[in-house]
Amino acid sequence: MDKGITRTEISTLGEFGLIEHLTKNIEFHNASTILGVGDDAAIIDHFGKQTVVTTDLLVEGIHFDLMYTPLKHLGYKSIIVNLSDVYAMNATPTQVTLSIAFSNRFSLEALDEFYEGVYAACNRYGVDLIGGDTSSSQKGLMISVTALGEVTPGEFVTRNGAKKGDLICVSGDLGGAFLGLTLLEREKKIYLESPQIQPDLEGQDYIIGRLLKPEARKDIIEFLGEQGIKPTAMMDISDGLSSELLHICKQSEVGCVVYEDKLPIAEDSRQFAFKLELDPTACALSGGEDYELVFTIAQEDYDKIVLSEKVSVIGYVAEAAEGARIITKGGNTHEITAQGWKAF
Amino acid sequence: MDKGITRTEISTLGEFGLIEHLTKNIEFHNASTILGVGDDAAIIDHFGKQTVVTTDLLVEGIHFDLMYTPLKHLGYKSIIVNLSDVYAMNATPTQVTLSIAFSNRFSLEALDEFYEGVYAACNRYGVDLIGGDTSSSQKGLMISVTALGEVTPGEFVTRNGAKKGDLICVSGDLGGAFLGLTLLEREKKIYLESPQIQPDLEGQDYIIGRLLKPEARKDIIEFLGEQGIKPTAMMDISDGLSSELLHICKQSEVGCVVYEDKLPIAEDSRQFAFKLELDPTACALSGGEDYELVFTIAQEDYDKIVLSEKVSVIGYVAEAAEGARIITKGGNTHEITAQGWKAF
Repeated sequence: MDKGITRTEISTLGEFGLIEHLTKNIEFHNASTILGVGDDAAIIDHFGKQTVVTTDLLVEGIHFDLMYTPLKHLGYKSIIVNLSDVYAMNATPTQVTLSIAFSNRFSLEALDEFYEGVYAACNRYGVDLIGGDTSSSQKGLMISVTALGEVTPGEFVTRNGAKKGDLICVSGDLGGAFLGLTLLEREKKIYLESPQIQPDLEGQDYIIGRLLKPEARKDIIEFLGEQGIKPTAMMDISDGLSSELLHICKQSEVGCVVYEDKLPIAEDSRQFAFKLELDPTACALSGGEDYELVFTIAQEDYDKIVLSEKVSVIGYVAEAAEGARIITKGGNTHEITAQGWKAF
Repeated sequence: MDKGITRTEISTLGEFGLIEHLTKNIEFHNASTILGVGDDAAIIDHFGKQTVVTTDLLVEGIHFDLMYTPLKHLGYKSIIVNLSDVYAMNATPTQVTLSIAFSNRFSLEALDEFYEGVYAACNRYGVDLIGGDTSSSQKGLMISVTALGEVTPGEFVTRNGAKKGDLICVSGDLGGAFLGLTLLEREKKIYLESPQIQPDLEGQDYIIGRLLKPEARKDIIEFLGEQGIKPTAMMDISDGLSSELLHICKQSEVGCVVYEDKLPIAEDSRQFAFKLELDPTACALSGGEDYELVFTIAQEDYDKIVLSEKVSVIGYVAEAAEGARIITKGGNTHEITAQGWKAF
């Protein structure tokens, strides 16, 4: 089927026909999924484990722009951002529900593309789609995902357990998604002003991929489990490292010190930042949507983590009175302020 | 505070300030709520019971009209429609998450009214608000609620267990919400055409209440439990009795026979239907949003249910080959067709 040509109106299926169409190939990955789509509610049984619940809303024009976001990537990302929250609790995601409202400009083929991405994420992370709701909207696309997971009682990690002297760790690298967004917004603006100019995205696969197709750090949770490390506090980085560090400091009633030269920034991100005359450090601190994990560990766990290429130690937890500070490469000290990119 | 005069822009709080404002007075009702709002995810522990999950999306202009829906009632109803789905599984709701997207025409005072209704429903039904997401939207209000509940393993009731000879039961009465909607839509139309004419809603409290402030039938689930009755199939009536009966018939691979004169219709509903020259039976069959329960029970449970004023026996389960039929007061037989009111 040539998706570029065929256009099936969703109204030809009706709501129940649509749900059946979108969910007919579901295969479950988890024994905990007792009953899935097709009844008033789903049933899950975490068999003595605790259930983790998180939810996220993605709104067209606020969280994503369909001008440069392929629907398949959007479907994938809608699931990932929620799984990331489950991993950030030191838990394993097992089920998701997905509700979606769309205007009549979306065809069945468009929805199929979106769901292709949803199922790709579910398969990759071994989670089951167990329910949801579909609706029309007057304008725009809106996506609401709830993820459920499981954790051994007492093993979950909150934001409020960081202790003075703990080491602050970050997975992967930071700032890439923000730079990808900056690039795509720039090319969009150029295109709208001069449609004859083709977008120039050459060589920028890395930062674009960081924005459009993020992954959740399942591997970090597995690594921590293998090493026998239980972080004292943990969050995923969706709003930006600065913002998340301030949450941990506030909820743990501590301060922190971060070293600029320890911040993990990919070479591709650094180069593109320089090209735009942006400060890579500012991008790493304030750029959101990288979906990396920031966590604190006791000092005695340092030896277990130092050799991992996936994790960077970027600073340490201080007393609350010391505030949240960054020490620059030049040796200056600045206060860390929240500058997440989600603004009302 | 005079809500009619004060208008606080939500942008003055920021996202985290808003969440704190909306959730600061939460008190938990359930021991199963281990961790609520304020981290990457919530933690619940149903202690050996199975977890029930359901989700619903309410979109302005599709599912509700703010011209005649008070925000407090809308908040209440947003929770109720999900709890109703949990009860329809023969389960007890325990937690909800709530995500909401709103345009800048909504003030903080407007959101407060909405949340007043949310908390009123949570308190009445003893469920805990444990998470959610807030976002701006380009246009309109969108509400996504996920409800979680618990059920003793194996005690949940699906749509696929109805057996030939079972009795079909319905709680409460039907058609009222549809008639309330018809009334309000009529008055809205008159008002838009002639704004000097005051809406005439006198004496129609019952049907308006059925639409704007529905309740979930917790009492029916408790009654069934006390009587030791486990329905063979059950659904809540959100799309209309006809539509729900056809779901049960399809999923249980059975047919059904329903008697027109057994359909429970409130006197207020009947009178208003006559006033509009509508057939009360059609309203009861096809009108949605009453949030009553339709369920099937084994014949031997008849004695336990016959004296309840809350439950009507409206027919019986037949063989699949007989189809789904209604026998009119005049003795004629008609096929039951789905005519839910949610159309794409």
